[in-house]
Amino acid sequence: MSEPFVVVGGDAAGLSAASKCKREDPDREVIVYEKSDWISYAHCGMPYYVKGEVDSIGDLLSLSPSEVRERGVDLHRNHEVVDIDPDRQVVRVEADGESAEQSYGDLLIATGARAVSAPIDGTDLDDVFTMHHMHSAAALRALLTPPEEADDSIFDAGYVDLSEMTEYFERDPPETVAIVGGGYVGVEMAEAFLAWDLDTYLYQRPSRPAPPFGEAVGDELVEYLDESGVELHLDTEVETLDGDGSIERVVAEDGTVEVDLALVGIGIRPNTGLVADTGVELGDSGAITVDEYGRTAVEDIYAAGDCAEDRHAVTGEDEWVPLGLTANRAGRAIGQTVAGGLEPVGDIAGTAVLKAFDLECGRTGIVDHDRAEAAGFDPVSETITAGSRSGYYPGNAETTVTLTADRGSGKLLGGTIAGEDRAAIRIDTLASALHKETTVGELERFDLAYAPPFSPVWDPILVAAKVLNGSLTG
Amino acid sequence: MSEPFVVVGGDAAGLSAASKCKREDPDREVIVYEKSDWISYAHCGMPYYVKGEVDSIGDLLSLSPSEVRERGVDLHRNHEVVDIDPDRQVVRVEADGESAEQSYGDLLIATGARAVSAPIDGTDLDDVFTMHHMHSAAALRALLTPPEEADDSIFDAGYVDLSEMTEYFERDPPETVAIVGGGYVGVEMAEAFLAWDLDTYLYQRPSRPAPPFGEAVGDELVEYLDESGVELHLDTEVETLDGDGSIERVVAEDGTVEVDLALVGIGIRPNTGLVADTGVELGDSGAITVDEYGRTAVEDIYAAGDCAEDRHAVTGEDEWVPLGLTANRAGRAIGQTVAGGLEPVGDIAGTAVLKAFDLECGRTGIVDHDRAEAAGFDPVSETITAGSRSGYYPGNAETTVTLTADRGSGKLLGGTIAGEDRAAIRIDTLASALHKETTVGELERFDLAYAPPFSPVWDPILVAAKVLNGSLTG
Repeated sequence: MSEPFVVVGGDAAGLSAASKCKREDPDREVIVYEKSDWISYAHCGMPYYVKGEVDSIGDLLSLSPSEVRERGVDLHRNHEVVDIDPDRQVVRVEADGESAEQSYGDLLIATGARAVSAPIDGTDLDDVFTMHHMHSAAALRALLTPPEEADDSIFDAGYVDLSEMTEYFERDPPETVAIVGGGYVGVEMAEAFLAWDLDTYLYQRPSRPAPPFGEAVGDELVEYLDESGVELHLDTEVETLDGDGSIERVVAEDGTVEVDLALVGIGIRPNTGLVADTGVELGDSGAITVDEYGRTAVEDIYAAGDCAEDRHAVTGEDEWVPLGLTANRAGRAIGQTVAGGLEPVGDIAGTAVLKAFDLECGRTGIVDHDRAEAAGFDPVSETITAGSRSGYYPGNAETTVTLTADRGSGKLLGGTIAGEDRAAIRIDTLASALHKETTVGELERFDLAYAPPFSPVWDPILVAAKVLNGSLTG
Repeated sequence: MSEPFVVVGGDAAGLSAASKCKREDPDREVIVYEKSDWISYAHCGMPYYVKGEVDSIGDLLSLSPSEVRERGVDLHRNHEVVDIDPDRQVVRVEADGESAEQSYGDLLIATGARAVSAPIDGTDLDDVFTMHHMHSAAALRALLTPPEEADDSIFDAGYVDLSEMTEYFERDPPETVAIVGGGYVGVEMAEAFLAWDLDTYLYQRPSRPAPPFGEAVGDELVEYLDESGVELHLDTEVETLDGDGSIERVVAEDGTVEVDLALVGIGIRPNTGLVADTGVELGDSGAITVDEYGRTAVEDIYAAGDCAEDRHAVTGEDEWVPLGLTANRAGRAIGQTVAGGLEPVGDIAGTAVLKAFDLECGRTGIVDHDRAEAAGFDPVSETITAGSRSGYYPGNAETTVTLTADRGSGKLLGGTIAGEDRAAIRIDTLASALHKETTVGELERFDLAYAPPFSPVWDPILVAAKVLNGSLTG
C-alpha cells in the first residue's frame, strides 16, 4: 500500500489534484491540508461579488468541504503544514495549537500566493483592504451595503463570522475610496466601487493601468476609466496612507485626498516559505521550479498553482504567471500523474482577459519588447483598429489589436485586443496560434469566421496580421 | 509594356485582385468586366437588409463604381465576357448588343456562383424569390414594407430601378411565406420574415437545418426556430409551388399550405460556363481547380472566389467552400502575384458562422463522419455543453461544443459551437488549431482566457477537448 498523497493547500490546484488522483486511483489515500477556513473559491469573482453583481459569496465556491469529502478526499481545514522533511517523507501539521506528523508518498505544494504589502505607512489602518482573501471581499461588501439593505444571505457560504459582518453592515457606507495599484484587481474594483457610487481615486506608478496588456490597451483603459468617473492618478507614487485609527487620507506625490476607504492591490508573491531548506528549487521569479509534469527538484514533491512557475509556450522558459486555469490544469495533471501515468501540466501562454466597465481587454504571449529581447527575439509590433462586425451591422464596435512578432522568423510572439464587442474572447485565437508556433504570414491566411453579426470579412486579427506582415516583409 | 490584367467579375474576388494589383503595380493596366450593374456587394448582409436591421441597400456596398475608378481600375459594368481564347490571350466582351475583343496578359475568372434552380414546378411564379442577387433583396424589402412606410432611401445605391420598386411598395405586404431550403439563407431569412410578422414555413429535405453545422447544432437550430415561431417542415420534400400567375400555395409531401410569398434557397453552383473548352480544369465540385497561387491549368489564367476550389487545411484536398473571406483573400493574393511576387491564396478550413435569432452557431473543418472517412480518417466525435462564463456571473449561457478527431493520430478534424453568449466567435480558436494541425491532447492544454465575465476556468472548448481526448485515449 502506497503512503498517502498529501496536498498542501485547498484551492484550485490542490483540490483539482486531490480529486483527480482519487478518481483515477480510488484506493489511494488522499489528504488535503488547508490552513484557512476557505477552500475552492473563485478569486477572480471577488470584484463582482463586492460590486453586488454576484449575489452571495457562496456563489464563488466551486466545492463545499462536504462535496470534497464525498469524493473520498480527507480534507482538513485550519490545518497548516509548517515543515517538510523530504528524507523521511513526512510533513509537520499544526492545528488548534497542536502539532503532528504525517507521512506522504507524494506531496503537492499548492500554497498559492499572497498580496504584497505596500512599502508605505498606514496599510495597517482600519478600512485599508487588500483583495486576496474572501474574508476581505465579504467585509467590503458588508461595508459598502447601506445598513437598511443589510442581509446575511450574502454570506451564505458558512465560512463567514456573521457577528463581525454585522459591524460592517451597521456602519454608514464609505463615500470615497483610494485604490493603490492599477492592475487587474485595481481596475475591476474601480468598477465595483463606482457601482456603489463612491468617489473613486486610482493611484498607479506606471503611466497606464494593467501594464501586462501593453500600451494600446492601457491607453484605452485610461480613456474608459476616466469616462466612467474614476479619478486617475497615473505616474503617481503614493507616499503614505494616513489617519487616526482608520484611513482618512491618501498622501501622494501629487497631493493629498481625503478618503474613508482604501484598497491596496499592488501585486502578489508566491508562498514558498514552506519549501525553504527542502531542496525544492525556486526560479528567478521566486516561485517553485517544476518540470513538465509539475515535479520539483525533490523526488515525490510536486508544485502547482500560484506558487509555481510553468513553461512558457513562446519563450520555452520558466515563467511565473499565476492564473486560475493554469492552477486547475496543473493540479489535475499532477493528480493523474500521481495516480499513475505521466500527464504533462501543459505550457502557459500568459493568456489573460480583463473587463473595465464596457471595455473588454485580452492579452496573450509576449507583448513587451524588453521581455521579447531578453528571450532572444527581435520584436516588431503593429497596432490596428477595425470593426468587430460588418460596418453596417448594428453593434459593430471598434476593436484594437496589437500583434508582436520576431523580425527574423516572422514568429508571432504575442498580442493584445481591446474593444466593447466580444473583444476579449477573440484573444483565444491568438493563444491557439502561439501554442503552435505560428508566423504572422500564416496567421494572415487563417480561415476565420465571417458573418455580418459576428465579424467583418477581415476579422480585426487578420487585419493586424496583414499590417504586421507588411512591416516584416516590406 | 505588359498586356492588361483583365478581371471577369466585379465582386469580392475580382475587385480585391484588381485593387491590389493596381496598388502594387500602378503602371499596369487593370480592366474589370462585370456583367450586371452591381459591384462589390455584401451577399451575407442581404437577410439583415430585408429584415430592416440594415437601413439601406447602399450600406451593403463596399465600393462604389467611382471609388473603384479612383483606384485606377478600368471598370466596365453591364459588360459580359462571353468567350476566352487562351492561345491568342484575348477575351470577347459583349455590351449594349455589341461585341469586342480585349487582349490580356493575365486573366482572372471571378464569375462567382448562382442560385440553384429548384427541380420543381412553379419557381417562375410571381413572388417566388431566390436570394442570390441584390435586386431580389431590394424587391423583397419593398414588398415587405407596408405602403404607408414606403421610402426610397432604402435603395440609395443608385443601382435600383425605382419605378419597379414603387410597384412592390404599393402592394399590401404578404402575410405568409414558404421558405424552401433550410441552409444559411433559409435560416437567416426566416428571422427576417418573422421580423415583418409573416407566418413563416420552412421546408427542408434533411432532418435538420444547416447540415454543414452537424447534428448537435442542427438540433439546437430546430429548437430555436421552433420557439421563435417558424413552422418547420423537416424531412419534407416540396413537390410544387402552385398559383395562378403568382404563388398561392406550396404543395409538399406532408400537405398543402396557402402562402403569398415563397423564397427558394436550396444552394448555389459555381459559374464556370465561360471556361468550357479553354483547358481550364474543373474539380469534382464543378468549380475551377487552382494551385496554391490561384493559377488554373491554363497559363496566365487565374480563378478565385465562389467559382473556384481551394485547398482544405485538414484534408489537403481541393474543396469548394464558397465564402466571403476566401474570395477576398484569394483575390488579394492573386492581385499581388500578378503585380509581381508569388503570394499564396491560403488554405480554407471551412469556417462559417450563422445567427438564428438569439442562437449563434459556428463550424470549422470536417465534422461529417462520412466526409472524414472519405479523406482517410477514422473520426470520433464528442459533444459537451458547458457555460460560456463563470456560473455565477450574469449572462452565462449554455454553450454546446462538438469536436471531431482522428482516432489514430488524435488530430483535430473539425468542430461546431452553438450558444447564445459569444458562441460563434469562439469557432476561430478551433480554426486556428486546424490550420496548424493540432491534436486534441494539445488543444486540451491550450492556455485559453479565463475571467468570470468572459469564460469559465475551463472554456467550453477545453471541456470538449478533455472529453474527446478521454474517448481517444481511454
